[in-house]
Amino acid sequence: MVFNQPLGGNEMPRFGGPVTMMRLPAAKTAEGLDACFVGIPMDIGTSNRSGTRMGPRQIRDESRMIRPYNMATGAAPFERLQVADIGDVPINTFDLKKSVDIITEFYRGIFRHGAKPLTLGGDHTLTWPILRAVKEKHGPVALIHVDAHSDTNEHMFGETVAHGCPFRRAFEDGCLQNDKVFQIGLRGTGYSPDDFNWGRKQGWTCIQAEECWWKSLTPLMAEIRAKIGDAPVYLSYDIDSLDPAFAPGTGTVEVAGLTTQQGLEIIRGCAGLNLVGGDLVEVSPPYDPSGNTAVIAANFLYEMLCVLPGVAKQS
Amino acid sequence: MVFNQPLGGNEMPRFGGPVTMMRLPAAKTAEGLDACFVGIPMDIGTSNRSGTRMGPRQIRDESRMIRPYNMATGAAPFERLQVADIGDVPINTFDLKKSVDIITEFYRGIFRHGAKPLTLGGDHTLTWPILRAVKEKHGPVALIHVDAHSDTNEHMFGETVAHGCPFRRAFEDGCLQNDKVFQIGLRGTGYSPDDFNWGRKQGWTCIQAEECWWKSLTPLMAEIRAKIGDAPVYLSYDIDSLDPAFAPGTGTVEVAGLTTQQGLEIIRGCAGLNLVGGDLVEVSPPYDPSGNTAVIAANFLYEMLCVLPGVAKQS
Amino acid sequence: MVFNQPLGGNEMPRFGGPVTMMRLPAAKTAEGLDACFVGIPMDIGTSNRSGTRMGPRQIRDESRMIRPYNMATGAAPFERLQVADIGDVPINTFDLKKSVDIITEFYRGIFRHGAKPLTLGGDHTLTWPILRAVKEKHGPVALIHVDAHSDTNEHMFGETVAHGCPFRRAFEDGCLQNDKVFQIGLRGTGYSPDDFNWGRKQGWTCIQAEECWWKSLTPLMAEIRAKIGDAPVYLSYDIDSLDPAFAPGTGTVEVAGLTTQQGLEIIRGCAGLNLVGGDLVEVSPPYDPSGNTAVIAANFLYEMLCVLPGVAKQS
Amino acid sequence: MVFNQPLGGNEMPRFGGPVTMMRLPAAKTAEGLDACFVGIPMDIGTSNRSGTRMGPRQIRDESRMIRPYNMATGAAPFERLQVADIGDVPINTFDLKKSVDIITEFYRGIFRHGAKPLTLGGDHTLTWPILRAVKEKHGPVALIHVDAHSDTNEHMFGETVAHGCPFRRAFEDGCLQNDKVFQIGLRGTGYSPDDFNWGRKQGWTCIQAEECWWKSLTPLMAEIRAKIGDAPVYLSYDIDSLDPAFAPGTGTVEVAGLTTQQGLEIIRGCAGLNLVGGDLVEVSPPYDPSGNTAVIAANFLYEMLCVLPGVAKQS
Amino acid sequence: MVFNQPLGGNEMPRFGGPVTMMRLPAAKTAEGLDACFVGIPMDIGTSNRSGTRMGPRQIRDESRMIRPYNMATGAAPFERLQVADIGDVPINTFDLKKSVDIITEFYRGIFRHGAKPLTLGGDHTLTWPILRAVKEKHGPVALIHVDAHSDTNEHMFGETVAHGCPFRRAFEDGCLQNDKVFQIGLRGTGYSPDDFNWGRKQGWTCIQAEECWWKSLTPLMAEIRAKIGDAPVYLSYDIDSLDPAFAPGTGTVEVAGLTTQQGLEIIRGCAGLNLVGGDLVEVSPPYDPSGNTAVIAANFLYEMLCVLPGVAKQS
Amino acid sequence: MVFNQPLGGNEMPRFGGPVTMMRLPAAKTAEGLDACFVGIPMDIGTSNRSGTRMGPRQIRDESRMIRPYNMATGAAPFERLQVADIGDVPINTFDLKKSVDIITEFYRGIFRHGAKPLTLGGDHTLTWPILRAVKEKHGPVALIHVDAHSDTNEHMFGETVAHGCPFRRAFEDGCLQNDKVFQIGLRGTGYSPDDFNWGRKQGWTCIQAEECWWKSLTPLMAEIRAKIGDAPVYLSYDIDSLDPAFAPGTGTVEVAGLTTQQGLEIIRGCAGLNLVGGDLVEVSPPYDPSGNTAVIAANFLYEMLCVLPGVAKQS
Repeated sequence: MVFNQPLGGNEMPRFGGPVTMMRLPAAKTAEGLDACFVGIPMDIGTSNRSGTRMGPRQIRDESRMIRPYNMATGAAPFERLQVADIGDVPINTFDLKKSVDIITEFYRGIFRHGAKPLTLGGDHTLTWPILRAVKEKHGPVALIHVDAHSDTNEHMFGETVAHGCPFRRAFEDGCLQNDKVFQIGLRGTGYSPDDFNWGRKQGWTCIQAEECWWKSLTPLMAEIRAKIGDAPVYLSYDIDSLDPAFAPGTGTVEVAGLTTQQGLEIIRGCAGLNLVGGDLVEVSPPYDPSGNTAVIAANFLYEMLCVLPGVAKQS
Repeated sequence: MVFNQPLGGNEMPRFGGPVTMMRLPAAKTAEGLDACFVGIPMDIGTSNRSGTRMGPRQIRDESRMIRPYNMATGAAPFERLQVADIGDVPINTFDLKKSVDIITEFYRGIFRHGAKPLTLGGDHTLTWPILRAVKEKHGPVALIHVDAHSDTNEHMFGETVAHGCPFRRAFEDGCLQNDKVFQIGLRGTGYSPDDFNWGRKQGWTCIQAEECWWKSLTPLMAEIRAKIGDAPVYLSYDIDSLDPAFAPGTGTVEVAGLTTQQGLEIIRGCAGLNLVGGDLVEVSPPYDPSGNTAVIAANFLYEMLCVLPGVAKQS
Repeated sequence: MVFNQPLGGNEMPRFGGPVTMMRLPAAKTAEGLDACFVGIPMDIGTSNRSGTRMGPRQIRDESRMIRPYNMATGAAPFERLQVADIGDVPINTFDLKKSVDIITEFYRGIFRHGAKPLTLGGDHTLTWPILRAVKEKHGPVALIHVDAHSDTNEHMFGETVAHGCPFRRAFEDGCLQNDKVFQIGLRGTGYSPDDFNWGRKQGWTCIQAEECWWKSLTPLMAEIRAKIGDAPVYLSYDIDSLDPAFAPGTGTVEVAGLTTQQGLEIIRGCAGLNLVGGDLVEVSPPYDPSGNTAVIAANFLYEMLCVLPGVAKQS
Repeated sequence: MVFNQPLGGNEMPRFGGPVTMMRLPAAKTAEGLDACFVGIPMDIGTSNRSGTRMGPRQIRDESRMIRPYNMATGAAPFERLQVADIGDVPINTFDLKKSVDIITEFYRGIFRHGAKPLTLGGDHTLTWPILRAVKEKHGPVALIHVDAHSDTNEHMFGETVAHGCPFRRAFEDGCLQNDKVFQIGLRGTGYSPDDFNWGRKQGWTCIQAEECWWKSLTPLMAEIRAKIGDAPVYLSYDIDSLDPAFAPGTGTVEVAGLTTQQGLEIIRGCAGLNLVGGDLVEVSPPYDPSGNTAVIAANFLYEMLCVLPGVAKQS
Repeated sequence: MVFNQPLGGNEMPRFGGPVTMMRLPAAKTAEGLDACFVGIPMDIGTSNRSGTRMGPRQIRDESRMIRPYNMATGAAPFERLQVADIGDVPINTFDLKKSVDIITEFYRGIFRHGAKPLTLGGDHTLTWPILRAVKEKHGPVALIHVDAHSDTNEHMFGETVAHGCPFRRAFEDGCLQNDKVFQIGLRGTGYSPDDFNWGRKQGWTCIQAEECWWKSLTPLMAEIRAKIGDAPVYLSYDIDSLDPAFAPGTGTVEVAGLTTQQGLEIIRGCAGLNLVGGDLVEVSPPYDPSGNTAVIAANFLYEMLCVLPGVAKQS
Repeated sequence: MVFNQPLGGNEMPRFGGPVTMMRLPAAKTAEGLDACFVGIPMDIGTSNRSGTRMGPRQIRDESRMIRPYNMATGAAPFERLQVADIGDVPINTFDLKKSVDIITEFYRGIFRHGAKPLTLGGDHTLTWPILRAVKEKHGPVALIHVDAHSDTNEHMFGETVAHGCPFRRAFEDGCLQNDKVFQIGLRGTGYSPDDFNWGRKQGWTCIQAEECWWKSLTPLMAEIRAKIGDAPVYLSYDIDSLDPAFAPGTGTVEVAGLTTQQGLEIIRGCAGLNLVGGDLVEVSPPYDPSGNTAVIAANFLYEMLCVLPGVAKQS
């Protein structure tokens, strides 16, 4: 089989060519794919700064520099997997509740084709409808959730659908294996200790950012892998888990977060897990004048591809 | 009676002091006011770039330079009217349809107190719920609508509530005196001639931007005043009516628009009309790095205040 | 025949979908097309600020708002022409001289298919190699060249290939009908009167910006159409012809230029001419924080499509 | 007693509501308050980039996301203290020397009411006049001064009042307990070793940034607390102590500074001290396109509130 | 005599070479010069946004594109005048009052050498101390003052030295021929009609911006030249006279101003007058992300050079 | 001998004065100098974002804050060395291959005068032609190369001269002592393991970024010094070695890089080596809105000066 390859810099300058993820071929559906990049251009679930609707476009744009081989891990995903960019989910930007149903239906289609979705967000509301489709395919899954916020609000402004609520909803829908839920990077201010403790009460492991300061997260990931074992796992990466020095372009900024190095340690630390999908959310280009937040997002999505099952390392 | 005055630059540097409109006193309600500034921080009705949720904050911030006396027209509104900034409408940012009802209810309160609202937007969806409250107070009104777009879509993405639909909805609700509706500045691309002709079929006067090029709009406003007579009038000013050279900070940009000079001619040309309220919408601060789009917006809202009934000129 | 249509805003939000020109289908070649959009991501011919290599990407991105029907002129190009976006020319970004040959060869292919190219630049060097291919197809052509600069330098820094030289080179190559060459918008500073007079000596008509101030250019275009008659014409539009108030994102800025309105008058004034191609050059996104220079560029390219032969007006 | 509470996100969207610190109620004076936020919009004491006059406005704006409860430390300041935002000091922006007297007089008023001021700067000149008022209230105080610069110049350009001199002036005025002065984060270039050694000669402890690299500052703060004991302490936090990766928006940038994590460790390490006030200075919004420098500043001021005496932890 | 020439683009790329005005030779004093460019890096006289201290640096930087010959007017100043850039006035940035005396003394030196100064500002406070030196050399002079503001405040915040007061001070010092003072472009808001009428009462001609809309200012300049005759004239050009669409990078923005075209008409309309000096003030780079405000400023200063006595046109 | 001194902040405000490196005197050649700063304004060798042509100008501009004495190391370079800024190399911006020859010739001149060049880049292509001149002077040299990329491509887009190839070319030209070549900071994606291993095969030491995470590089530098001994050494510092959080303004961004602290450790760790020159490359101002990338670059170049032979520490 001939696998799709990213368009190389020796065939077309990096600043030219198609604005697909990594300049991969575009596809209309996930049919025949092992993994697919898909965008959800949405910001109507945000509670502070908006702009994440532009995330998928800028992540694709800034993915243009990424070459096929991972110099750090030796992964060569395009030698093992058929991958394409299947474009964006046509959400209804005027109705958040309808949008979540559109998303679930769209991901049902992806899973029907047997592809693993790697999602370019978009605000974090989108993880709930994805997890609903994940559950239909895989049953309840383990979850690695990297974020400054727990996103387990019962409601925001009286609403149950918002970017601060997806994991509460996913819990209620039985999408999660509660003893295998890991939240990493939580920090900042809240309304009460329950903001983080709610998850703990469900059996989740919540690692606050302060516990991550000054150290490599590689040991943590070894522990997490041991606890998850071979359960199916979903990885949800909120860019605001990173310190805003690294990722200024996001909407609900919390200071003193993770470093990009730690972010890579987390994703690379997923190698060996039975990952069934992942997302990278909350990139807000209007607040990212250099474009570098999107560069990180693009690289993190590539690194997720590098740890999908079947991508053996070549070291 | 002692009228509220904007905080002066000799009492507090322009870059200090309260971030209210023109550094006026804040008020909790419109009680006792002749006119009020009110913000609607909303962008969930936008169809392209978002960010207008930040509009009211930045318009207030950039209003800090405006002094009380209008050097061009001689208007001195704070010698004739009791004015305050009554803050923002607490919209539900996760549900557009609920937000429009919140807005109507809020404006009912303003009109109950007999105050005239001057609204800091916020996306253009907001004019429909305001006009519903206007109708309850005044019956159908004349309308001067300055915009690049007609905003008379039957629906957008299947939805009837969106920033491209408010005037269609207001028409359906009987809010308008159709022979006294004037749309100024329409231009750009569309789906068919009906995009502008629908209004014309209802008896509206639609003046495309090309008709405005190269000339003063003062004569046009004389015509409009003659046609409106003493009917109650609402003024809805979309900042994207201006050419993006003047007002870059907006979301649905159309090139080759009005000049700021023409914008002032339009608003100043409303002097003598029975204005019952006005709004300035679609300022999107994330796309306005110099802040000058908000400076225009703040000035235009001040100029609206200067043409409210009862503000006699002092020339 | 079913013509390609831009992806509509009711099928996919404007901020989603493919990043092709106007969200049209992509095509690999010009085969079967009446007209095509093509990008040349190049800035190695620039002499002051660079960044035009990013022009095609941002023009495509900011073209997402353009709908199919021209509200001002009634043109409906997608009802008459088969149009697609054929992507970028793979220039050699390390060698300007090789790049011009790559460009000529690429456009030979377009013309072989009988398509009319509308080019997203890229620095102005690119017009010379395009005109070489134009000449092979059509013989010498009339030229409408809108620009702040005459771009007729004998050399720059000793080089004959640079963005200040393309029309001198095209002249030398016999690409132009010298009595039908029109340069509009020239201004600024130079080394001597010959900077503009060289063209005049070849029989060209050079209209300095000062002659354009304060007036519509519609009469000028009538004169130009009369002089050109039915000769084949190429339209080269340098965004720096516009005043930097309208188009800040460019590299060799000259103050006091044309307005966007005049730009539209020029392009719309080409209706009825036998246009064989056009380009829009010198958009430099790094100097365009709001993105609006690219918005203008995208609209101007659409307007060029609207005046191609065979696009009848529907007024 | 009912304490003032920040306006919550479920009552008004985060991007709406009053632009006070944390959307707290505004107050005209410090009467009845335990602590107050107060702005000093000043940049005429800056020696390189200006713009800090806009600091208080943007810090307030970007404080809108902060919720009442500190997830890391368990502090709940609004359950223990009466806090409000008392607005800005009306400095004389045309005369630096008069401004310092205005500031001292203003803070005398705050201390007369028994409130602890937390100041939003503004350039660092302002700490001297505050310390003069502090001394009148408390006598000489201990000082924790976090900064890239020692700010102990004898003069700048011949002037004794400037943002590089406040701690020299405070020393001369007898405001400090010299054995309890701690300067943290000093670095960069100077004129001679005396730039930092002058303080050391007075008995101050000066910890250069290089001593802080690669490690937590929690142990350092334990030492400092031990040395200060129960003496009254003032905390002066210059945002340029942070590495410019974290805090780009400031005027006298020095590379290789503290991390935000270290900043939090310093402030949180003040818990248990007898803090009598604090300031956060040198935020320059024009150099902070993402707004995130102001986000840090707002959070640091909130963290200062969390360590004021009487705010017991709830862990 | 061999005149200094700007460094040409064929000798050094435009983006290289010395950062002097137009890449002219630097000089330590005005000795031997007919005209000199001089910077006054000052913003401590500003009342709203600061940042004009960076004006001279950015104007010089963005002057790099200007070539020696004026294509519009035929002026070739470097064939007739000895010109250099004599650097910056070392103002005392911590004391505005001392700075004005430093400026006057510095300009005495320039005039002693018989050179005509063209000043790169800096805030408008600087024109008063320059005019004091002008008076010592030439006696009272005619004045052409282009500005959005009259800058004739008796005081600001109780101070007589500020950027809103220079022409009141110059009047009091007898620097002006009151029947030959022309203020062009005044607009916006004020405290009372006297803001503009004070000058009129002294015999000045004050032309409000509204009188300038929609028309060329060439006829106005003919009138002004007739009234001034051969009196010595000083030209003070505040960039905020321009509409902020053209010149966003300034501190006290007023909407609906002059166009760049009108600005050129004013300066070119000074040809034939006995100009003794000129300034271009109030460029604030932090509010000018594209750099184009400084491009205009640089060109306007060049155009002032082109109309100095002795620069004959070569048309 | 009297050494050149940077212009001090007490003689001229930091935001005024000449735009030379550290506001040092300008010189026309390197004659009589021990060390010189020289700019190479070039970006035509870049493969992704351009803009590095503006690097030398902005590095000089942002160097204005640097004072003569190094507070961390005690170095006082201007007490031991004669240093000046000799301006820019007049590269041919339209022909990369000619430019490399111009550069080599220019550096021959510098070395002929016995000066050590510290180069302000400009894209990394420039190091190859410098190393050719270095070899003529010193024979093959040791190399410390700090970078995200190995820059040892055999070719890019078929070209041998490009910013991804300089060290391959230098190797081929015999410029390097292969057992004394150290590459630090390599990371990201590539085409195959050979991207980094090619150097290793030549005997080079390649330290990937992951090996640098979480630790001081001071021990590494001790090892490197031991291996280099007293061989002549060239230091080439690519700003993209730093994490983009620190240095956003560059063209080929790779995430998870070095910290500025590590950068200082590397440069300061060169003290004691026989440094014969150094460069700081790839600063791209259009992608650096705060200017702080250039601030780092300026400081790193100053630190290089501080470790040149003969600059004894004064600790």
